[in-house]
Amino acid sequence: MEQRISLSVLEQFVSSVFNAIGCSTEDAEIATKALVAADLRGIDSHGVARLSGYVRLWEAGRINARPNINIIHESPSTAVVDGDGGLGLVVAPWAMNVAIDKARSAGTGWVSVRNSNHFGIAAHHAMKALAHGMTGIAMTNASAIVAPTFSSERLLGTNPICYAIPAGNEHPFVADFATTTAANGKLEILQRKGLDTPDGWLQDANGLPVNDAHVLRKGGALIPLGGDREHGSHKGFALGSIVDILSGVFSGANYGPWVPPFPAYVPMPENQPGKGLGHFLGAMRIDAFRPAEDFLADMDKWIRRFRDASPVEGQERVIIPGDPERTFEAERRSNGIPLLPVVWDDLRSVGEKFGINL
Amino acid sequence: MEQRISLSVLEQFVSSVFNAIGCSTEDAEIATKALVAADLRGIDSHGVARLSGYVRLWEAGRINARPNINIIHESPSTAVVDGDGGLGLVVAPWAMNVAIDKARSAGTGWVSVRNSNHFGIAAHHAMKALAHGMTGIAMTNASAIVAPTFSSERLLGTNPICYAIPAGNEHPFVADFATTTAANGKLEILQRKGLDTPDGWLQDANGLPVNDAHVLRKGGALIPLGGDREHGSHKGFALGSIVDILSGVFSGANYGPWVPPFPAYVPMPENQPGKGLGHFLGAMRIDAFRPAEDFLADMDKWIRRFRDASPVEGQERVIIPGDPERTFEAERRSNGIPLLPVVWDDLRSVGEKFGINL
Repeated sequence: MEQRISLSVLEQFVSSVFNAIGCSTEDAEIATKALVAADLRGIDSHGVARLSGYVRLWEAGRINARPNINIIHESPSTAVVDGDGGLGLVVAPWAMNVAIDKARSAGTGWVSVRNSNHFGIAAHHAMKALAHGMTGIAMTNASAIVAPTFSSERLLGTNPICYAIPAGNEHPFVADFATTTAANGKLEILQRKGLDTPDGWLQDANGLPVNDAHVLRKGGALIPLGGDREHGSHKGFALGSIVDILSGVFSGANYGPWVPPFPAYVPMPENQPGKGLGHFLGAMRIDAFRPAEDFLADMDKWIRRFRDASPVEGQERVIIPGDPERTFEAERRSNGIPLLPVVWDDLRSVGEKFGINL
Repeated sequence: MEQRISLSVLEQFVSSVFNAIGCSTEDAEIATKALVAADLRGIDSHGVARLSGYVRLWEAGRINARPNINIIHESPSTAVVDGDGGLGLVVAPWAMNVAIDKARSAGTGWVSVRNSNHFGIAAHHAMKALAHGMTGIAMTNASAIVAPTFSSERLLGTNPICYAIPAGNEHPFVADFATTTAANGKLEILQRKGLDTPDGWLQDANGLPVNDAHVLRKGGALIPLGGDREHGSHKGFALGSIVDILSGVFSGANYGPWVPPFPAYVPMPENQPGKGLGHFLGAMRIDAFRPAEDFLADMDKWIRRFRDASPVEGQERVIIPGDPERTFEAERRSNGIPLLPVVWDDLRSVGEKFGINL
């Protein structure tokens, strides 16, 4: 059974842990907001369930808790940021601020990031732009658990894309999705329940279709969005590749099979061509394109027309990207965040390492 | 049986037709290059097979052959271009030049276009950036033949996305794909052959799965990339939506169900909120991110690593986006472009209208 924890208690705890590994108070708060955003929005796989994983990366010397993040290359609308091996949860917000500053003066801002680590959920970073009257974009590469179309090797991460687009009276449009048929988090849920996956999510080490939710440990792979060639998996492969290139090749980070793994026990890939893991962040000022009120009125009209579409039988309505996550967030802010017993235990044992109670 | 036509003869003919409907010599050449690029690259559905369709749009007064294209809003890295009802084949190249100019000074350039028409294949416009040492991006919305996840109504076009990314010694990475499981062109091939479609391409007017390749005429719809909710169709829906918003809402063009149709006999949607059809074009200078030689060396390494991946049994290798189209182009430039008898007939009857022989 899940037990709830209040947001403030959880944030206090997580922040203390980041402090304990050496983060400044400010960075610990930034990292906490980014991590807990996943739990608030119902993306439980990317939230505090991963806190112990971040700590293990730090223990393995793969995370720098006191990074000297800086801009190493720039133009009026672009920058490359070096994260100095810091937490992606800290580096990505820093880089997103650069994108927003660039957009303020140049209309748009585009920041490719190298030498970073996993950044939590893309939506947290992209949505930062909304408060500035901007569209926000966030992508990241990640360690290779996805096989390109026709490949039996894993060469891409689940490489998510997020677009957060402001609206007027409606809530913003926030689409945040892995470029695979199913995100790794959905796989983890089936693993915990001991269930097989639907067809079209996985392939085995030889590239053959398989339903074993544990196949990633046996050399298997997730499949690009589309599923198979006949249903456009080459498009999902292209999307994951674009994210990899914008995040890794644009910045000088690692890419493809060389992206650092999240589990600290997995050895680092050999002969890495770049530094750390890469992100790509963007901000576009609404009024760099149209007067804001015209834009926002059209976005409202767009959202209403799609939400009001005639649904297929058995479904209530078309779901606008961002709607489910916003509902989660409202409910969890009020009632607390449900954590599985295994996550409670995991958090408590992380706390014990540093003498922090939960 | 298909019969070949030489590229120069075909270009001469197409250009004469565009001239005959009133395009300037320069615009006729620009439109011809854009249209024939589809035939060269093997995207036969979007090439000269559509010439008669463009002429019918002009006859219906829906295309302005002498547009006064101009910038109506701009910032250092952005612009909105009004196409004045011109051919998308002419308006998009004009707007792409603006994006490239912006990128030259600001690092990146982003142009949203309104009051345009269908622009042919996205790759032709995106690839223009390559010669300038830039990554090119092109998207367009199109008339609604795609149903969002859970919708029985058609609200999106096939809304393609193209990224063209330069490489060094390798050929560029060029991914150009509809945000549906199958492009409309593939459907047209099955229609001509009288064959059913695979599962997962189509739904009928009630939103139920169907294999009838003619179902679009009966209120049915193409399906977003992913196929169904369990395999990520909400992600394909989000992608198609992002293209629609960047092309339509960012520019003040029409969007969703209000985008003008390609067939001239289909009535214009009522109460359109914007002007014409929209595109979104981008250019990013490589050296706005990294020294060009570092970037190009990493792109070469990326392409080689993916192409050399161990293939699944029965497949030769992983296909890098852009490889098949480049092979088509090389072969067709040498040996001419194969046209179906129905396309020959269609072109000849277009020619007859204007006294142009083929």
